[in-house]
Amino acid sequence: MLVMMSKDSPQAAIDRVVQRIVDQGYQAHVLPGAVRVAIAVTGNEKAVRIENLQALEGVLEVISVTKPYKLVGRDWKPENSVIQVGDVKIGGDELVVIAGPCTVENREQVLSIAQQVKKDGAHLLRGGAWKPRTSPYAFQGLKEEGLKYLAEAREKTGLKIVTEVMSPETVGLVAEYADVLQIGARNMQNFTLLEEVGKTRKPVLLKRGMSATIKELLLAAEYILQEGNYQVMLCERGIRTFEDSLRNTFDISAIPLVKQLSHLPILADPSHATGDRSKVAPVARAAIAAGADGLIIEVHNKPEEALCDGPQSLLPEHFRKLMGEVEKIGAAVGRKVHKSIE
Amino acid sequence: MLVMMSKDSPQAAIDRVVQRIVDQGYQAHVLPGAVRVAIAVTGNEKAVRIENLQALEGVLEVISVTKPYKLVGRDWKPENSVIQVGDVKIGGDELVVIAGPCTVENREQVLSIAQQVKKDGAHLLRGGAWKPRTSPYAFQGLKEEGLKYLAEAREKTGLKIVTEVMSPETVGLVAEYADVLQIGARNMQNFTLLEEVGKTRKPVLLKRGMSATIKELLLAAEYILQEGNYQVMLCERGIRTFEDSLRNTFDISAIPLVKQLSHLPILADPSHATGDRSKVAPVARAAIAAGADGLIIEVHNKPEEALCDGPQSLLPEHFRKLMGEVEKIGAAVGRKVHKSIE
Amino acid sequence: MLVMMSKDSPQAAIDRVVQRIVDQGYQAHVLPGAVRVAIAVTGNEKAVRIENLQALEGVLEVISVTKPYKLVGRDWKPENSVIQVGDVKIGGDELVVIAGPCTVENREQVLSIAQQVKKDGAHLLRGGAWKPRTSPYAFQGLKEEGLKYLAEAREKTGLKIVTEVMSPETVGLVAEYADVLQIGARNMQNFTLLEEVGKTRKPVLLKRGMSATIKELLLAAEYILQEGNYQVMLCERGIRTFEDSLRNTFDISAIPLVKQLSHLPILADPSHATGDRSKVAPVARAAIAAGADGLIIEVHNKPEEALCDGPQSLLPEHFRKLMGEVEKIGAAVGRKVHKSIE
Amino acid sequence: MLVMMSKDSPQAAIDRVVQRIVDQGYQAHVLPGAVRVAIAVTGNEKAVRIENLQALEGVLEVISVTKPYKLVGRDWKPENSVIQVGDVKIGGDELVVIAGPCTVENREQVLSIAQQVKKDGAHLLRGGAWKPRTSPYAFQGLKEEGLKYLAEAREKTGLKIVTEVMSPETVGLVAEYADVLQIGARNMQNFTLLEEVGKTRKPVLLKRGMSATIKELLLAAEYILQEGNYQVMLCERGIRTFEDSLRNTFDISAIPLVKQLSHLPILADPSHATGDRSKVAPVARAAIAAGADGLIIEVHNKPEEALCDGPQSLLPEHFRKLMGEVEKIGAAVGRKVHKSIE
Repeated sequence: MLVMMSKDSPQAAIDRVVQRIVDQGYQAHVLPGAVRVAIAVTGNEKAVRIENLQALEGVLEVISVTKPYKLVGRDWKPENSVIQVGDVKIGGDELVVIAGPCTVENREQVLSIAQQVKKDGAHLLRGGAWKPRTSPYAFQGLKEEGLKYLAEAREKTGLKIVTEVMSPETVGLVAEYADVLQIGARNMQNFTLLEEVGKTRKPVLLKRGMSATIKELLLAAEYILQEGNYQVMLCERGIRTFEDSLRNTFDISAIPLVKQLSHLPILADPSHATGDRSKVAPVARAAIAAGADGLIIEVHNKPEEALCDGPQSLLPEHFRKLMGEVEKIGAAVGRKVHKSIE
Repeated sequence: MLVMMSKDSPQAAIDRVVQRIVDQGYQAHVLPGAVRVAIAVTGNEKAVRIENLQALEGVLEVISVTKPYKLVGRDWKPENSVIQVGDVKIGGDELVVIAGPCTVENREQVLSIAQQVKKDGAHLLRGGAWKPRTSPYAFQGLKEEGLKYLAEAREKTGLKIVTEVMSPETVGLVAEYADVLQIGARNMQNFTLLEEVGKTRKPVLLKRGMSATIKELLLAAEYILQEGNYQVMLCERGIRTFEDSLRNTFDISAIPLVKQLSHLPILADPSHATGDRSKVAPVARAAIAAGADGLIIEVHNKPEEALCDGPQSLLPEHFRKLMGEVEKIGAAVGRKVHKSIE
Repeated sequence: MLVMMSKDSPQAAIDRVVQRIVDQGYQAHVLPGAVRVAIAVTGNEKAVRIENLQALEGVLEVISVTKPYKLVGRDWKPENSVIQVGDVKIGGDELVVIAGPCTVENREQVLSIAQQVKKDGAHLLRGGAWKPRTSPYAFQGLKEEGLKYLAEAREKTGLKIVTEVMSPETVGLVAEYADVLQIGARNMQNFTLLEEVGKTRKPVLLKRGMSATIKELLLAAEYILQEGNYQVMLCERGIRTFEDSLRNTFDISAIPLVKQLSHLPILADPSHATGDRSKVAPVARAAIAAGADGLIIEVHNKPEEALCDGPQSLLPEHFRKLMGEVEKIGAAVGRKVHKSIE
Repeated sequence: MLVMMSKDSPQAAIDRVVQRIVDQGYQAHVLPGAVRVAIAVTGNEKAVRIENLQALEGVLEVISVTKPYKLVGRDWKPENSVIQVGDVKIGGDELVVIAGPCTVENREQVLSIAQQVKKDGAHLLRGGAWKPRTSPYAFQGLKEEGLKYLAEAREKTGLKIVTEVMSPETVGLVAEYADVLQIGARNMQNFTLLEEVGKTRKPVLLKRGMSATIKELLLAAEYILQEGNYQVMLCERGIRTFEDSLRNTFDISAIPLVKQLSHLPILADPSHATGDRSKVAPVARAAIAAGADGLIIEVHNKPEEALCDGPQSLLPEHFRKLMGEVEKIGAAVGRKVHKSIE
């Protein structure tokens, strides 16, 4: 349910509506907009029922939302959400590129790659300290040690950090270091984890699960927003299909579809989608052309020695070339690549 | 790597081999078998390398295991694993049926259904106290209150309890009440959770993820065994495909495939696979015919009022009929349905 | 649209209804039933509109059929269709097994396998004379020569022949030799071919396409019935999914689903579904347990030398064992295996 | 097998090599290249074996091709194939756009849309005279009458015609009217049809089947080339996956993958891939950005009255806008949109 109030409603009027909602056992999410104030009513029940809201001062309209998601939808918030990480704004006019190694392997590696991608124009640094691995015998990440190296790389380069959090009990620890909390594809429906990052006020990068529908992706994001953390960016990273030439099938249509249904930014991860270095740039260009707000790209200085996902990592020279291509495609769709303040 | 020792090796000889393995930074999993003692060597590294093991007393052979999984495979343990829950043995000659409501809704509901399924021949009681739901606005379960009702139902009926655990930090709490810890499909690759249940010594029912390959299912189980908990039963519950007539596509071939590759029991969940009451019995019969060790079936006394998954729940009379069919199909493949000791 | 007439309507009354339908440019499919005469009205238009039918003598009811298929559905024909091939009845109480080599390779091979499967209890002989092959460089079949060997095998064994027809212009030729015309999975939506076999009065075995939904399978069958050939049996042979352990994913739920929606018989082809000899028997048992009317099984006397699909072909001894299993599972679901009259 | 000869080999030397190949029962496909003359040897056998070829005059090298396809691969022909239709060249530097209605509905409709898309910059006219329809009761096309209207539209606008051929026996008829023969997704593995269009010398537009792998698409094209028709362009039109928000999942990675493996042009059909007008332009831009050689777009002047696929057809104003976007994206990847000679 959405309660629409006139833009110039006094705070007291808004508070009265919120109080009425809370008194009935629901939660109120107030969103002041350019034209109106929208208050979403959510709660663990099938049908929200609050009487007489329309009679309260300032209430223009009470709208029943039939979509299963409320807060991530454009009904509540028609304009795009813009998420700020340092001086980088994601979801606005500018295109944003997150780059770095799949995994933090050691101090030298992460510092060297960070400096390289910074020089080549990346805006945020990615790198995994905890790695969800299909096999228990694969390298699982440096954990807190990895976070420390990432923090050092941030200090040296100014690049804010995007890193994955894998379990509810490490959210606090990871949030101490990270600027953006990443939820990986395998955890897209780890609801306890979603709730936990929802309780922080850190931006979240939520990757689509490998067999998740768009509706399920939006509902996973809704878990985070419902906890009060509205800074969520989504990420298409390929889905699992019968086609086995590449690792996953990048679902390009997901980009305009998410843009239509939701106000949240959507990024593209062509590295995990393709698993093949030579396909990263074409899919990255395609994603920007389709309207993605940015990219997350794996870059490694020695892919042949990478502990994880070497074959899909770009070399710095490829990454530099890709940044040029992103600039051109961006211009063709009316968007500029963000220029970091030095 | 597998170290095969002669069956009559003295304990001291086995201990020396284990010590050598541990000294090199690996873990040793000793499995006394009918013919030989098998010691699996595992560790977080790509290639295990231990010199001179073959020279130790009692060592017959050192085998390199090329499959990605070690402990769940038949190389380490050729004979079927049998998991005991009370007087019920899963994975042996007998067929086992787990039944109960999708969700614990209230005390009366769970007690009533428990008594009903007990009377109709079920061997274990299922029921969700924590429910992973796609939407944050759907009923999420009664949590600890639900566990208490399950425990009461166990007391009244003698049926041991199978219930889902959704997050690492509730494993301890759920394990206090449950006899079998269930990991749901969405959490099949929640590796932190897998490790946590691996640290308990409770039997685990691990459901296949909706887009997981058989290899990934076996590797998820390997996470649990690797922590020392060898009591894992797998469960096929349908995969996600293009076919949309039913909720999921039950992968019948998964049953003989798992049986060939692994010593772990495999159950079938036709309720979640089909999402349609009228298809539960045919798929259940098929699963038994294909070699499944048992079934997990949703039964509800008032499906039209169920808070979750009503359309797929059997009525008690359907369940009774199904038990009769399972008995007949079981006989056709040389297996008896377990008869509980009253 | 269905026109229901009283069972004892005089032929003249039925003829008048048919005439009225034909006069309006539609086709009438008359089906005398145990309780009523059902006349389906079909035509190449979205909505059939015929006025005043209800006023005609003998007309009980005019029913609008909202399902996209008319003639294959149970609305028109509630009872199961039984298709007779020689003394073999498919879709009735008895289970039927079609067996033989994937491909007719030479005279000796087909005669030898035919005699073997006959001895072991098969009811019909399968064998491909035209083979649809993914690569133009693979063996494409012996064509008419192959048909002649099949005919000779029929003469020697009494087994009627099931063989694939690949293109509209060979329907006539194949129909001269074959007792059942098979449409392969890749041709399930070759509509010209469907129409052509629909014009014959030979029984048709229509295989599900590898990415066809059940609805599409039924509509493909509708193409054949619409031409007046009502002797169609369907066949589940596995669908294409992300799971790559086996060749296809056998969709076991398709069997009860087809049984619910359609009066046509449904067979199972576990050989093509699994592509792996060791999985054929478990999936075959499962299919019978789920309600399939029969099986189509590849048998080869020298699978290692087979020109096509060797790894999935059963040896005669496996086939014999499978026939025994089918008998037992059949008994468990109340069906007998057909016994051919010697 | 590939036989590489020096570029300046005399014709007699080439003829001698071809003769040797033919004498052994194989087919020879001679391809004079910029650097060398490549002769592909094909035949219906697993392994081609011709002795002493290397000893013949002009032969530089005999290369064994391990890929399952020979003629469509870049081994035989490293440079891109360019297919000429009138003054339009597909697969070269320029981008080509095919536009028109899904189905030819009547004379006025096709003439009106043809003139409109011509004005807006389309290079070829599409329109179906035979329509493969899932249901036998859906509109199946005007057949030859439709071809005549298309021919008239060509006369009036100068736009060459792309139209589908559905069965082997109509190839001759369709080829009398059409400039490009289209093979639809459902017929991608209708091998008889592929052979038949392979025998013509008309350019062929081969659409990927909805569950075909890239390898299968290339092998389907190989059927056509193997018959001597080398003018084949491929078309990605979406594959069938679990995601059901849109009709199909456009496989964007297929474009760089096909470009890497094959010299044949690849087009994109965003209309059928998405089934939703508002997603056509984003996916079209993406395809061009990923390296597609052109687009095939459904345009209708009255989509709400269209007999087929109305919801996915662009209005002329959308199409005009899209042409502008294609131009910009093309420029960003170094390609110009073809300008037809008036």
